[in-house]
Amino acid sequence: MLPKSIQNLINHFTKLPSVGPRQAARFVFYLIKQPKKDLEEFAKTLFGITKNLKKCSSCFKAIDVEGLPANPPAGVAGRHGSVSYVCDICKNPKRDKSFICIVEKDTDIESIEKTGRYNGLYHVLGGNEIKDFSEKNLRELHLKELIERIQPPAGHPQGEKKIKEIIIAISATTDGDTLALYISRLLKPLSLPVNKQGIKITRLGRGLSTGSELEYMDEETLSQALLGRK
Amino acid sequence: MLPKSIQNLINHFTKLPSVGPRQAARFVFYLIKQPKKDLEEFAKTLFGITKNLKKCSSCFKAIDVEGLPANPPAGVAGRHGSVSYVCDICKNPKRDKSFICIVEKDTDIESIEKTGRYNGLYHVLGGNEIKDFSEKNLRELHLKELIERIQPPAGHPQGEKKIKEIIIAISATTDGDTLALYISRLLKPLSLPVNKQGIKITRLGRGLSTGSELEYMDEETLSQALLGRK
Amino acid sequence: MLPKSIQNLINHFTKLPSVGPRQAARFVFYLIKQPKKDLEEFAKTLFGITKNLKKCSSCFKAIDVEGLPANPPAGVAGRHGSVSYVCDICKNPKRDKSFICIVEKDTDIESIEKTGRYNGLYHVLGGNEIKDFSEKNLRELHLKELIERIQPPAGHPQGEKKIKEIIIAISATTDGDTLALYISRLLKPLSLPVNKQGIKITRLGRGLSTGSELEYMDEETLSQALLGRK
Amino acid sequence: MLPKSIQNLINHFTKLPSVGPRQAARFVFYLIKQPKKDLEEFAKTLFGITKNLKKCSSCFKAIDVEGLPANPPAGVAGRHGSVSYVCDICKNPKRDKSFICIVEKDTDIESIEKTGRYNGLYHVLGGNEIKDFSEKNLRELHLKELIERIQPPAGHPQGEKKIKEIIIAISATTDGDTLALYISRLLKPLSLPVNKQGIKITRLGRGLSTGSELEYMDEETLSQALLGRK
Repeated sequence: MLPKSIQNLINHFTKLPSVGPRQAARFVFYLIKQPKKDLEEFAKTLFGITKNLKKCSSCFKAIDVEGLPANPPAGVAGRHGSVSYVCDICKNPKRDKSFICIVEKDTDIESIEKTGRYNGLYHVLGGNEIKDFSEKNLRELHLKELIERIQPPAGHPQGEKKIKEIIIAISATTDGDTLALYISRLLKPLSLPVNKQGIKITRLGRGLSTGSELEYMDEETLSQALLGRK
Repeated sequence: MLPKSIQNLINHFTKLPSVGPRQAARFVFYLIKQPKKDLEEFAKTLFGITKNLKKCSSCFKAIDVEGLPANPPAGVAGRHGSVSYVCDICKNPKRDKSFICIVEKDTDIESIEKTGRYNGLYHVLGGNEIKDFSEKNLRELHLKELIERIQPPAGHPQGEKKIKEIIIAISATTDGDTLALYISRLLKPLSLPVNKQGIKITRLGRGLSTGSELEYMDEETLSQALLGRK
Repeated sequence: MLPKSIQNLINHFTKLPSVGPRQAARFVFYLIKQPKKDLEEFAKTLFGITKNLKKCSSCFKAIDVEGLPANPPAGVAGRHGSVSYVCDICKNPKRDKSFICIVEKDTDIESIEKTGRYNGLYHVLGGNEIKDFSEKNLRELHLKELIERIQPPAGHPQGEKKIKEIIIAISATTDGDTLALYISRLLKPLSLPVNKQGIKITRLGRGLSTGSELEYMDEETLSQALLGRK
Repeated sequence: MLPKSIQNLINHFTKLPSVGPRQAARFVFYLIKQPKKDLEEFAKTLFGITKNLKKCSSCFKAIDVEGLPANPPAGVAGRHGSVSYVCDICKNPKRDKSFICIVEKDTDIESIEKTGRYNGLYHVLGGNEIKDFSEKNLRELHLKELIERIQPPAGHPQGEKKIKEIIIAISATTDGDTLALYISRLLKPLSLPVNKQGIKITRLGRGLSTGSELEYMDEETLSQALLGRK
């Protein structure tokens, strides 16, 4: 039998996505061979994220608050009645605030930023991996807050903001498609004229991805690639 | 040592794409356990394709000529000075002859037909798997014949045909992209007004293919998916 | 739709083990691009194995009989009442006839011969891939003939032969283990003294195979490796 | 750009064996969605192993020392001049102390214990994954201590112990084979009579592992399986 402290640590690693007990054991036996100082550093960093990490009160992107003064924009602080933080993208005056790109998770923002093709704002749905569409799961998706961002109550300072387009940038998987459909239906009433201007609701284009061969493409993707030819 | 007739047959199977000697041996030992009649049938079918298979003189799609009278459309038979055949798609009066879709191989036609989204004609490049862009390889691609289809000599009966769009439906691999670029440059001078109308040259749309996750997408595809959003 | 002769050939290739319609199509489109002469050669070789291939009347190894005179050893020809052939291994006077190694298929003989560790005779079970142990399947395994080889009827010339060991060289898969168990039970009564000498019935040793790591070994194999340590 | 505390944590996870930056990011984004309490627990457990984990002074198996009194067996404590601990297996009076099984790592002990086929002692080589056989790497393998265990100095209480067999239970990989060869050469002089009795040095048996098919076996393994038949 393995020592208890090793077994406990293996159990913690086994909870990580797609890590089995065998790989977790390998992690742990690797770790116990590392210098004591490195391990302490790892543990400290892990502990740190419970304290240092908050979410942007506007787009729900994770932000580091270590040594950061709470800096709520007018009208936001009051809403939740507590100190709130705003991320670098939402604060950046050079970003085009008439575009909101809905993503599932923070890393998707990284991916989109790397393309250099988008200069609007984001909205992170968060929540756990979406596997079922129970009410409980849907409630965790910050959709209520998304609607508030798009259609602020009358008299609200954000009310002036004219959102032109909402891009649903969700994976083209079955679950992703279902979620995207759900969101686009939810937003449909809002796509009616706001301040005399309609909001366009779009999804990422479908077609051949780099490296894909005609021979292995499914019918649906090939249809989309034909329709989207240019 | 394996019997000579087995070894010879293994050698033939080993030449097939992505078949190694071990798999070839498995094929052969499977075959020798089959009823004699099935094997004879297989051999006969294999032999048959050397005689029964020709290529459409217009689009180079493979066609079966067993029991088929040579049926050249006026103006085609003379070109090659020999009996020529025309495929079902080229002959079909319901297909829109102002569209030509360039594909690498016959099976790509099958894939596109299955989508039900295309009603034009095809042009099969053929040739072996395109790995290098030597002159010899390029010459085998029926590109000369493609240009003749698009811009027939004056007085030629096909001269009346007005081609509106040429769709380059080639895989999104590195080699496919290089070939597509080569073809679009070759066709560029032809995209000038023909009978007062320009020819549009397009490629299949790029973007997320079914099942692809944002997390695993390359920058280029994500860029294209953002630009092609709708 | 694909031309009929292409579709027929695809159908034949699809019957090969672990070949799907897509790979079969790739085979066929590869073939139709090859020189006519190569294709004819392929078809001829395929046709040839229906005529040139027989099985050794003793061990059931496949043998080439093209231009070979029927050369039955005394006592064998009579048994089946027809012309019969004997393979090179069975005929070789240098092979030790007191050892019989039972294999599933001809290629296993190749594998064992390559090790250079075995100089006895073989017995090919043949039959299709063993998936179920129905009576019909078992009957195709040449087990009756195996028993005849081991315990020939009194007065039979082979009766002099003293078999010392029968090696069951069957894969260590679940089906292989079941078959090996079945065979060893079948042979058990024969392992009683024959001509005053018992027959040893063995199986291939179990343990670590080259490249296998302790970490990934199943309990059973590790047990066997411990017991078989040396 | 990702928040610094997230990036730092990703960097720590990326150091784990076979974890890339992408998987590390997935781990971290999974973790930040977990309850704060779970994360603190994880960090605490990780921190704990730097304090609670020691190695058995005899066999170098990892042991938990939380709340454990140092319990050195006579004659061991003095050797290193500091507090030392002995594992449950080494302490167990029912284990046969005349057998030592050399393993690469703690988890291999788990694997062997599960078979229920071994009741001797172990010796964990430890060290990092053995990739090169530099002196530095070899020095970390506790081989010096292994020799001391086998051949204690005269007058030493362990001197009475009669070791009968040393089993080198190392993976059958190229590196494992090289290491096993190195160790068996190192131990060879010791296999001379000790207290009038020789020490047998063995390795795990080679052969077919569960599920392996003859068709895919390398020559070496098949040779060993033939030699080790039973």
